[in-house]
Amino acid sequence: MPKWETLEGSLASPQGFRAAAGAAGIKNPPGTLDVALICSDAPETTAAGLFTTNRVAAAPVQVSRQSLAESRGRCRAVVVNSGNANACTGRAGVRAAQQTAQSAAKLLGLGPCQVLVASTGVIGVPLNLDLILKQLPALVKNLSVENAAAVAQAIMTTDTFPKSRVLRSEIRGKPVHVAGVAKGAGMIHPRMATMLSFLTTDALIGPRTLQQMLRAAVENSFNCLTVDGDTSTNDTVVALASGRSGAAVIPGDESRAWFQMGLTELCQSLARMIARDGEGASKLVTVEVQGARRPSDADRVARAIANSPLVKTAIAGSDPNWGRIICAAGYSGAQFDPSQVDIYVNDFALCRKGLDTGFDEAAARKELDQKELTIRVSLHQGRASARLWTCDFTRDYITINASYRT
Amino acid sequence: MPKWETLEGSLASPQGFRAAAGAAGIKNPPGTLDVALICSDAPETTAAGLFTTNRVAAAPVQVSRQSLAESRGRCRAVVVNSGNANACTGRAGVRAAQQTAQSAAKLLGLGPCQVLVASTGVIGVPLNLDLILKQLPALVKNLSVENAAAVAQAIMTTDTFPKSRVLRSEIRGKPVHVAGVAKGAGMIHPRMATMLSFLTTDALIGPRTLQQMLRAAVENSFNCLTVDGDTSTNDTVVALASGRSGAAVIPGDESRAWFQMGLTELCQSLARMIARDGEGASKLVTVEVQGARRPSDADRVARAIANSPLVKTAIAGSDPNWGRIICAAGYSGAQFDPSQVDIYVNDFALCRKGLDTGFDEAAARKELDQKELTIRVSLHQGRASARLWTCDFTRDYITINASYRT
Repeated sequence: MPKWETLEGSLASPQGFRAAAGAAGIKNPPGTLDVALICSDAPETTAAGLFTTNRVAAAPVQVSRQSLAESRGRCRAVVVNSGNANACTGRAGVRAAQQTAQSAAKLLGLGPCQVLVASTGVIGVPLNLDLILKQLPALVKNLSVENAAAVAQAIMTTDTFPKSRVLRSEIRGKPVHVAGVAKGAGMIHPRMATMLSFLTTDALIGPRTLQQMLRAAVENSFNCLTVDGDTSTNDTVVALASGRSGAAVIPGDESRAWFQMGLTELCQSLARMIARDGEGASKLVTVEVQGARRPSDADRVARAIANSPLVKTAIAGSDPNWGRIICAAGYSGAQFDPSQVDIYVNDFALCRKGLDTGFDEAAARKELDQKELTIRVSLHQGRASARLWTCDFTRDYITINASYRT
Repeated sequence: MPKWETLEGSLASPQGFRAAAGAAGIKNPPGTLDVALICSDAPETTAAGLFTTNRVAAAPVQVSRQSLAESRGRCRAVVVNSGNANACTGRAGVRAAQQTAQSAAKLLGLGPCQVLVASTGVIGVPLNLDLILKQLPALVKNLSVENAAAVAQAIMTTDTFPKSRVLRSEIRGKPVHVAGVAKGAGMIHPRMATMLSFLTTDALIGPRTLQQMLRAAVENSFNCLTVDGDTSTNDTVVALASGRSGAAVIPGDESRAWFQMGLTELCQSLARMIARDGEGASKLVTVEVQGARRPSDADRVARAIANSPLVKTAIAGSDPNWGRIICAAGYSGAQFDPSQVDIYVNDFALCRKGLDTGFDEAAARKELDQKELTIRVSLHQGRASARLWTCDFTRDYITINASYRT
């Protein structure tokens, strides 16, 4: 089968989808895009979703989880707003999310549990439901392939660029597409939240298979992403499959592995965009841990390094401070022998067998000055490995996050 | 028994102790105090120690752990240096730590395992042993009660003020003292590390009892302290008891509870000084969690809040951003019902039953503007509670930690 290749396009590049964005007046200034509707025209559409593991789940997360279950993976549309997370808003918040879904379903001629909802923005402030309800008829009317391009913009909060990707391949000679949009991880502006991603495909997939494949793709992409270690109340990844390409993804068949590859690649490229656009970030950092005794050890070491404020500030300052890296590995809880550890930035060795390599400072700094760099740690204890994406920690992170709400 | 009261004094305020500080030339500029020797003149002295849980333990930690065990808690002196952590320095580092202890022991007429060593500073750079060995005779010669005052200064790295405290009480009519010095938590300057604390007392205590009591005191003080969540390779707390007051601390006796109270109070006041002096910190923040179902739940929620970069940057900006606080509680792994949560800054309610209280923004900001403040979270699930100290996250944290090594 031909490689998955990147296309220009949008969420509506896969056949069967239309979308639209609008300005409901939730975000300032008025006229800013802050609502979007994504819809599949195919009755055979299947849906899958993954939601925050935070015990404090926003109202739209609660409602969408339930709709996905009640429809048995037969949702066909998503309404999303930015500017207000509808989290910590009590029963009124849940009612607002339900009414949004119900109103959209009515306008689209769908069952009420066939519409998913998602929100991102301020926590703890009641969502002005009327603003959304008023905008819904226009969103439905504007649904088109062309208008789908604006969705990536409408879901942004403090993201500095829209995140969108389309991949194309073939399954048994039939062209098949996967497309996705995402918005920033990390809780950014005061009381802002959330990683959101919406994926569409025209492959033909059963809902259970889609759910399994989405889980696997997210495990190797968005779950390998850490900006500040905070898990938001609103995190949501939803995939809709229209089936319109006629290309069937069949469990036990090579089509499944192939589709999994495309879906994972799509999610990974979106995850990397999010890391690159971390709050105040100046660098995209990949943390690779090799030679761990167990996968859980590799993961622990990688997460401790990627979440260490001290490591991340050192990277911001291009300081080849491997002491902080081995120190983070040391408190990660993983088992390893410190005197076996090698540490590299890109392919430049900073530490071998737990000791300084006597490296040239200026050369090391040059490696760290790159906009994309890899911190590689070899434990020499076994064969397990892990990879995470993160960003550096700059003064701008503090500036963005310490500012008053406006 | 009379309350434990604060005295002016030093590590040599407890009877039987002398100390001295010197400039070995490890720190820049030359002439900066960077070594210290603490010594008890009493042969009956007992010792206790607690060391980093980091798998990457610095050479002096490895050597001191062993000496404490081999001497069965009969150590009488500590040699400490700042400017170099002697961590990730391989066998040469261990030999340097051993030779420091042996040379000091010889000069003091003690057994080689009766001298403990501690280091703080750059990781991964060989310690220049000669600089320390050259300084040892002068340190021994200068040992005095007066010179003990300089120890708190000599152990500083990027601490902005020396941390020292002396408490006094009586046990069965006999005056008894506990004294301590400490240096900053968090890994501060590039490749700098470590929380160090040295405690002295003239109480008469068996080594096993002293170890137990030190553990309990540290559990409720230094272990309740988090600056950036990073656990260093060099963390060390050592207590020496000379017995010279003649005031015996006897297990099963009220003297034990009384002494525990003093020791814990001492450690807590040093821990608070460390939090207040966190890297770039502008505020001392106490995080109190009440009403948890289990102590482990209370601890998890408190640590998630105290370590969240988003909470700490919000506090730096005096932003009453309770959404980030409940969000951190939500991902802590603790069990609770979000709709029961109350959140206060000091006594000012921001959130009740999971919902915004509609508080006055300016009034809330005023509470957060204080130099010492408490974030209080009531879960209403049970009776367990936890308390941690931390500091806010300012732009200066990044500046301090991102700067190049010099």
